[in-house]
Formats: sequence, C-alpha cells, structure tokens
Amino acid sequence: MIEDIQNYMTAVGEKAKRASRAMDRAETGHKDQALLAIADQIESGRDRIKAENAKDLAAGKARGLSAAMLDRLELTDSRIDAMAEGLRQIAALADPVGQVSDLNYRPSGIQVGKMRVPLGVIGIIYESRPNVTVDAAGLCLKSGNACILRGGSESLHSNQALAACIREGLEQAGLPQAAVQVIETTDRAAVGKLLKMDQYVDVIVPRGGKGLIERIIAESRIPVIKHLDGICHVYIDDRADLQKALDIAFNAKTQRFGVCNAMETLLVAEGIAPQVLPRLADRFQEAGVELRGCEKTRGLIPQCLPATDEDWATEYLAPILSIRVVSGLDEAMDHIYRYSSSHTEAIVTEDYTRARRFLREVDSSSVMVNASTRFADGFEYGLGAEIGISTDKLHARGPVGLEGLTTQKFIVLGDGQIRT
Amino acid sequence: MIEDIQNYMTAVGEKAKRASRAMDRAETGHKDQALLAIADQIESGRDRIKAENAKDLAAGKARGLSAAMLDRLELTDSRIDAMAEGLRQIAALADPVGQVSDLNYRPSGIQVGKMRVPLGVIGIIYESRPNVTVDAAGLCLKSGNACILRGGSESLHSNQALAACIREGLEQAGLPQAAVQVIETTDRAAVGKLLKMDQYVDVIVPRGGKGLIERIIAESRIPVIKHLDGICHVYIDDRADLQKALDIAFNAKTQRFGVCNAMETLLVAEGIAPQVLPRLADRFQEAGVELRGCEKTRGLIPQCLPATDEDWATEYLAPILSIRVVSGLDEAMDHIYRYSSSHTEAIVTEDYTRARRFLREVDSSSVMVNASTRFADGFEYGLGAEIGISTDKLHARGPVGLEGLTTQKFIVLGDGQIRT
Repeated sequence: MIEDIQNYMTAVGEKAKRASRAMDRAETGHKDQALLAIADQIESGRDRIKAENAKDLAAGKARGLSAAMLDRLELTDSRIDAMAEGLRQIAALADPVGQVSDLNYRPSGIQVGKMRVPLGVIGIIYESRPNVTVDAAGLCLKSGNACILRGGSESLHSNQALAACIREGLEQAGLPQAAVQVIETTDRAAVGKLLKMDQYVDVIVPRGGKGLIERIIAESRIPVIKHLDGICHVYIDDRADLQKALDIAFNAKTQRFGVCNAMETLLVAEGIAPQVLPRLADRFQEAGVELRGCEKTRGLIPQCLPATDEDWATEYLAPILSIRVVSGLDEAMDHIYRYSSSHTEAIVTEDYTRARRFLREVDSSSVMVNASTRFADGFEYGLGAEIGISTDKLHARGPVGLEGLTTQKFIVLGDGQIRT
Repeated sequence: MIEDIQNYMTAVGEKAKRASRAMDRAETGHKDQALLAIADQIESGRDRIKAENAKDLAAGKARGLSAAMLDRLELTDSRIDAMAEGLRQIAALADPVGQVSDLNYRPSGIQVGKMRVPLGVIGIIYESRPNVTVDAAGLCLKSGNACILRGGSESLHSNQALAACIREGLEQAGLPQAAVQVIETTDRAAVGKLLKMDQYVDVIVPRGGKGLIERIIAESRIPVIKHLDGICHVYIDDRADLQKALDIAFNAKTQRFGVCNAMETLLVAEGIAPQVLPRLADRFQEAGVELRGCEKTRGLIPQCLPATDEDWATEYLAPILSIRVVSGLDEAMDHIYRYSSSHTEAIVTEDYTRARRFLREVDSSSVMVNASTRFADGFEYGLGAEIGISTDKLHARGPVGLEGLTTQKFIVLGDGQIRT
C-alpha cells in the first residue's frame, strides 16, 4: 500500500514537472482563458459540487467534527459564487511572467536585465476549507506554475469535484490537465513523499494551523513558504495622536480575533499610558476582551490580570490582549526584538524621527506607522490575492501574491560580445 | 574538546546576532568609513600579513600542498593591493539598505511599499584563497549584515592577520568588532555546528569546490546560496552570424578553462554545422582543447573523439568540449532542459523570434543572446562585486551581489487608518 503511494506520488511529481514546462511558456491569454473557463465550470457544476460536499459533511458529522469545522467545510451557493469570482479577479491581474526589469547597457556593450519567471512546481498542503483548492490553483496557474494540491481528508469529495472543474477548464484552454493535480488519497504517506520530492517540487506552501506547519517544516527537504506565529505588536508612543491610538489599538485587536495579523501585545509609553489605558480598557471590556498586563498597566486598569513572561510569547488568536507599559521607543523595540514573531508591528506616533527609526529598525515582514496591523494582507497591499504570508527572510517576505510564486533570471542581450 | 567548540561557536553566534542588530541600523557613512579604514589597515599591515602568510605557505609546503594550491594561498604585494582596492570599490557602491520601492497609495488611504533590509547573519565557508576573507567581509559589512567566516585550515594564519585588520577598521568607525568574526579553530566540528545554528545564522554561502558544497547542503539546517555545477551551453542556430558564432563559442570555452561560466557543451544546428564546426575545430586545436562529439560532429571533425552520455552531464573545468549537432532550436532546448545545471546558456542567432523564445523558455539563472557565457559574473553585470553565483530558484538567482545579501520588508504609512 505504502509502496503504491510512493509510486503514485512519483507519477504525480513527474507529470507536474512536465506540465510546468508547458505552463512556463503558456501565453497570458491562454492562462486567463483557463481561469475563466474554470470559473464557468464551477458555476455550472454547482449541483454536483454541492452533492459531493454533502458527502463530506455527512462523513464529518459522523466523525464528530466540531460545528466550526463543519462550517468551514460547507460549500454554500455564496461560497461557490465567491470561488468563481476569485478566479475572474485573478484572470484580471497583470501577468508577472516575462516582466523584464533593470535592462541596462554595460561598458562591454551587452545589455543586462532580469526577467520574471515561474518557480516551476508548487506543492500546497492545506486543511479543511475546500475553497483553497480553487484559490491556490488559480494563483499557481496565473503565475505559470504547475501545482500539486493536498487538501484535508475531511474535504476529499469536495476537492475532487472542484478538481474536475479545474481539469475541464484547463483542457478547454489547451493547457495540460496535469498543471493542477489534486491528490486522490488521504493517506498521510502521500504528504511525506511530497515533502521529499525535491527533484520535482520547487516550493511547499502550507495553509493551516501551527501544528500542521511545524510538521511540514520538520519533514520537508523542499523550501517552505510559511509563517508560524503572528505575535503582532502595536506601540503607542507618547507623541501619539490620542484618537488614532485608541482606534488603531482597538481595531487591531477586535476587528477579527482568530487571524494572524491581529494585535496580541499592546506596548504603551508611560508618558501617555494614563490617558490611553483606562479608555482602551473600557472599550475592550465592552468587546469582551480579557486584559493581561504588567504591574504598571494593572496600576492603571484595576480589573487587568497579571501577565506572565509566557503571555508576551503567546499568539492568543482569541479575545485576550497582553499590555506592557514601556519607558519609550527603545524599550518598545527591545520588547519587539525579543518577543515578536516577525509578522507585523505598528507604531502610533506623530513624531517624525521616531516613525523613521521604527520603520528602519524593526525587523518584521510588515512594519507600519499609524495604521492597524489588520492591513497586513495581500488584498489590502494591492497584490490582488494572497497564497500565504511569510515571516522568513529569504525569497518572499510578508503577504505572498503572484510575484512570490515567481523568481527572476538574468537575461543578457549582445551583438557578438566576447570577454577579453 | 568538541564540547568546547560547541560552546565557542554558540558564543560566536550570539555575538554575531547582537552585532547584526547594530549593523542593521548602521549609517551608510559609518559602514563606508569602516571599509576604507580596513583597506588602510591592510595596506599598512602588509608586512605582518605577509609574515603570517609565510607561516601558512611553509606549513602548506610541509604538508605537500600542490603548486596550484600554494599559488592560491600566497598573498603577494599585488594581491594585498587588490584586496584594499576591492574594499574601496565596495565603499563606493550605493548602499542597498533602506531603499524603498513601489510605495503606492491604496484605496484605504494607506501607503504600501517595500524597504530593503539586511538578511542578518551570514555564514561563509570557503577554501584556500585568503582574499575571500576580505571580499566577503566587505560585502557583508556594506549590506548591513554581520558575518561568520570559516576559511580553510591551510590559510589560518593569513586569515587571522586579515581579521585583525578588519576588527581595527570596524572599531575606528565605531561599529561592533563582532560584525565580522573569523573562526579561530580549524576543527571540522566548528563547521558542523555553524550549519546547525539556525537561531543565529540566516544564510550560508559556501565558496569552493563541488565536494565542499555537497557536504554543506547535506548538513545545513540553514538556507544555502550556492551552485553545484556550471554545465553551460552555447547553441549556434542556423540563422547565426558566422563570425559571431565562431568568436562566442571560442571565447566561451577558452577565455578561462576552470571557471563555472565557461561553455562545456556546444550545440550546433545541422544547417550551419558544416560551416561552423571545421573552422572551430582548427581554433580549438590551436588552443589545445580536446573535442568529444556526437556522430554527426565526428563526420565533420575527423579528429573528434566520441562523446558518451556522461559527457553531456559533465562540467569539465578543463580544455575539453563536448559538441552535439541538433536539428534546430527545439532539440537544442530539449538538450539544455535535460543536461543543463541551470547556470548560463547562450544562443547565437540573428532570428528575432528564436532569440525571443530562447530567452523566455530556457530556465537558467542567466540566459543570453549573442554574447559569451563568460559574461555571467557580478562585475560584468554591474553588481559591483559578487559573493557567489546561485542556480537555485528561491531568493537570489545568478550572480549574487549586495542586493542578494538583503531582503525586503513591507512598510505601511498611514494617518490612523483602521480596517472596516
């Protein structure tokens, strides 16, 4: 059985590699045509998709999946519409492949520049939401990559129904069906094998909880685009505009709780803490946010619980906030240096020099002045769509859109130049 | 002993990490001042450097190092001058750190852009040439990184003498001496430990032979910027200008033999092979190049030896060339797809559409039209200097200069925007 899976995955890898060579050179028009055809297939295949999704939902209920899990698994009409609409939006984005930049003449007479090209084959490993199948396939297709998709076992039937729509759309546009392959087995050995196929797969993008991502990093022989934690900080400087500070801190924590770009720790300069903290405490209390603070914070907010060292290092993903009063910018940046997960940090200040220092000196994938950390997102940044967020330093960093699924090669144009 | 080395390397890693935070924010002027001060130290410390180098040379002779190895190890006056001059050239380059690009307003009112920032700590592992110590330190310093340098055991004294100059220059400019650390032990366990210190080191750059690089890839838990082989191809199309074809093919093979951007395989369209190959054979014979070819090649060059399948996959780094006659562009690109090491490939043609296809479809770190593969080089490309060449797809690709030692973070400038 395991050996069959090894052979199956090897065949998947070979087909993907072959398809990637055709995708690499596919014309923009053909790729867009495929995206639009897949969108049509999803809309016209709505009944079949819902019937297959119903099988997953029934199996999920029988297995005792939580209501939240079942909700994420369900493909309603509006979610099916959203998938099709997402593909049409991707079709409308500019094609990054083939873009030439920095083409300059050199003293030798050659012209040297860079051309943007696809990565090749992208492996995507994700959990329950079946819409990831369509979003990820669309982004990989537009960026000229082949992809191998491995969804959660609980959404197997839904994913296969979507895969059929994708294959049909690819065929209509004259592109290889193997450009998007959705793994047909739920055996965990398939993931293990995928993570070792570095001869076929250029990069792995996991989508899911921290546990999934840690397992993938530990096992993978292929580079992984990922972030583990989003321990995002907002620092309210004593030269902050009070209203901006209150609004940004409240929004960064409460606009959505379970997301990686939500604030988890609030740092407040001691000079402004007496004005900021009691007011914020009232708003957070109304929103049902539990506060955990340092001694100085608790002096200003009586109902605040004590924060432990572990709190500073925790991504709550919940209505809980840790708060620390600091002496000023340097102590705030020291705290961030020590505890940040390098995802997103923001300063609220009207001070030019402090804003400039924060932007330069804080080493995170997104650094903000006077804006909510919730903006750290591919759509908000204008990338058009996002396949994930990276907190690593090499290759893509921050929200990863089409460009993050490509790389650049040097091109040289000459008239017969030789080196002397 | 091993435990001592573990502790020693951990201390080196911690110091580098701390120094990297100061280097990250160091002003351009201070970094340039340090580079110039190190250059001065190397020139004024010339006698001490040569005395230490003499110890390495004596030990090398006693150990029976080859004449070529001893030559690479020797620090002559002109090589010392070249090191100082190299540092001054790096000081004159633009500082990549802090460059902001693509700063645009979004519909929400925030401005989103990218800021170029250092990678952090760079580990460099290299073989005998002591000048790498100075070149690598200079590039890391200018790009705002701390670095840990591990040279070959045969150049230990030379490297330590150069390290003293570097420390002195850093101190004069008010930068932390730990920004450049040269490992003081020749114990191989130090390299093993370095490759596992992913909490301190962001990227590893090996400089040396394929054996060294293969060992490092196998052992490293840290991303490695590298190339293994340079199996570079020149394809002479049947619409090539004959003189350009002859000159480029000859130059790409013979301008230097032992370099990664030298041509190893020549592909010739059958329509032009009768005009090209006999003339080239004469020039190669004069230059002492051994030719190994396919059947059709041997029909046109009687003295040509037969090429085996292994020849197509071999980087000779020597006066040997494999030659294959192909039907045309597609067969040439298929050969390249199968055997290329993704380093550098060139087409010689006057045909617009074929040139355009070759540029787009060949997936190598450098792709050229009508120019010698020998141009694949950081200086020739205008990067100012080069720390290595990458044939990987993620992060840097092709010659790696200052920019390849940096990454980008997103920056967001707002006026109090929150997400709704």
